[in-house]
Amino acid sequence: MAEKHIGKQTVFLKNPPSIKATASIVGPREGKGNLKKCFDYIIPDELWGEDSWEKAESKLVRETFAKVLQNAGLSNDKIDYVLAGDLLNQCIAANYGLRDTNVPFLGLYGACSTMAESMSIGSMLVEGGFADNVVCLTSSHYCSAEKQFRYPLELGSQRAPTSQWTVTGSGAVVISAQGSGPYITHVTTGKIIDLGISDVNNMGAAMAPAAADTILTHFADTGLDPQYYDLIVTGDLGKVGKEICADILKMNGLNIEDRYNDCGVMIFNLNEQDVHSGGSGCGCSATVFAGHIYKEIMKGNLKRVLFVATGALMSPISSQQKETIPGIAHAVSIHRSLD
Amino acid sequence: MAEKHIGKQTVFLKNPPSIKATASIVGPREGKGNLKKCFDYIIPDELWGEDSWEKAESKLVRETFAKVLQNAGLSNDKIDYVLAGDLLNQCIAANYGLRDTNVPFLGLYGACSTMAESMSIGSMLVEGGFADNVVCLTSSHYCSAEKQFRYPLELGSQRAPTSQWTVTGSGAVVISAQGSGPYITHVTTGKIIDLGISDVNNMGAAMAPAAADTILTHFADTGLDPQYYDLIVTGDLGKVGKEICADILKMNGLNIEDRYNDCGVMIFNLNEQDVHSGGSGCGCSATVFAGHIYKEIMKGNLKRVLFVATGALMSPISSQQKETIPGIAHAVSIHRSLD
Repeated sequence: MAEKHIGKQTVFLKNPPSIKATASIVGPREGKGNLKKCFDYIIPDELWGEDSWEKAESKLVRETFAKVLQNAGLSNDKIDYVLAGDLLNQCIAANYGLRDTNVPFLGLYGACSTMAESMSIGSMLVEGGFADNVVCLTSSHYCSAEKQFRYPLELGSQRAPTSQWTVTGSGAVVISAQGSGPYITHVTTGKIIDLGISDVNNMGAAMAPAAADTILTHFADTGLDPQYYDLIVTGDLGKVGKEICADILKMNGLNIEDRYNDCGVMIFNLNEQDVHSGGSGCGCSATVFAGHIYKEIMKGNLKRVLFVATGALMSPISSQQKETIPGIAHAVSIHRSLD
Repeated sequence: MAEKHIGKQTVFLKNPPSIKATASIVGPREGKGNLKKCFDYIIPDELWGEDSWEKAESKLVRETFAKVLQNAGLSNDKIDYVLAGDLLNQCIAANYGLRDTNVPFLGLYGACSTMAESMSIGSMLVEGGFADNVVCLTSSHYCSAEKQFRYPLELGSQRAPTSQWTVTGSGAVVISAQGSGPYITHVTTGKIIDLGISDVNNMGAAMAPAAADTILTHFADTGLDPQYYDLIVTGDLGKVGKEICADILKMNGLNIEDRYNDCGVMIFNLNEQDVHSGGSGCGCSATVFAGHIYKEIMKGNLKRVLFVATGALMSPISSQQKETIPGIAHAVSIHRSLD
């Protein structure tokens, strides 16, 4: 087993890097949701002055990158790597949004798990002595995602009750070798899990087994008890997937319900906003973490958080070819202090 | 500057990991090219028994993963991470091809730079003590790429003289903490560079400035002289892009022409095979490295190699929206021995 591994899938960061700052920019609908007071900026409309949704998403990335550097008090030349990705084909939101940063770039694709993937790799690069500061960033955009993955918005398609609403937003964190926390102490990297769900309107169900697998593995690897965390939060399973994940965990002897939430459930007001099962997209867990969870940690309201972003690794083509939907989930363990 | 950084973009791996094994599987056309004797297997036709090109590409990934483990004498449970990506929307070749491996998965998107990106991150994870063994893998497929990025094959579109032929193939390496080389000693991570090329039939020209930037940075950061390497090899600039890259380097005072080659030029017989400017795709640099360069290093014919995979970070949508083509290139320095 590798030096820093504890259990097969988890590494322990002995010199844990700090999350120095976060930033989040969201769309108008997210700006009317439960967490509306948490974000750095709410854009006035889905185009934000651009002439396409894809360019608007790139602008979200560009401005969120600028904002997180401002919040960290760092200039571009202090950043060793930016690790980023999004849902658009060939990840053009990140590629074009970060084109002018002049920072070494590592592109990632983990579908909606990308925020935790970027924080996982980013914190290992920092702890390993390869970087002083990294930026981890993801985005999604409701209109560019619907256009690419589903139907033209103009069609006004009816949505299934299990469907989720892709978050328009971008979230970023700066992870640094120096700092006074919050600290990233453990990284549990997920495996691809496919239990045979093929309903593209029920991504939560497709991703839930992967989330449960990573959570179970995290506790098995670390020997920790769920009560160790104040909050265990999945990426974007939504209402339906969250219940499935909790059920799978219970069947495996792990009851986390008193401290479990999901970013897709948290970001919108599910009773009042017409988003069916909740939020989704790379931008969902990114903005909920950067906008809300991080600030709760900084305020002392949360001392230890397990952040588990989840992704569905399919494409429209794979669905048309009757493939099922593989899921993945990566977890990072975040501590306010090292007491 | 971070502990292991030498210069802004390069890390020095003091305890350099070894490339324990490689594997490569290619398509029929690649199997008739200059390097036909180097590959582990040449598939009989582009479908390889599957009912779609995408599924054939997933099979390339699946079988190359199995082959590289066999060549390394390792079982799945000895692999800490697999780092992989491809060109298909949402990276479905890697996602489906590696679905059943039961190995923690980190998905990457660096377009055709992905092989060097995966080896960069993989070797840092190993050197940092986070992994004993990682598999780095990429793929591409001529038919799935043409269908997705250009025109239906059935249309029989005429190709521009500057266009390149996407390689059908998958290449993989196992990078290990223990081993007797070849060693990965330096990693130079590229920035996104966009000099305004918008011709999607001239990817070589779009990527050449990024390749040149990373090569210049590598030598500036390390203080090495180009003569230090027996071979400096770019990923898939093709004939046109290779000349542009060499010219940019010369304009910047670096003449590497006596030891410079390009995987896109090497893989096909450009005089006899109808591939215009040469090979491209993630699978190009992956199979040329895994099939040919690695074996030349093992034979002692090459002692030190700078492997610089190059990617064009655009999509059909970004081109339709009149965006130019950003490029990126990542470099890894490989030594037969540590003398």
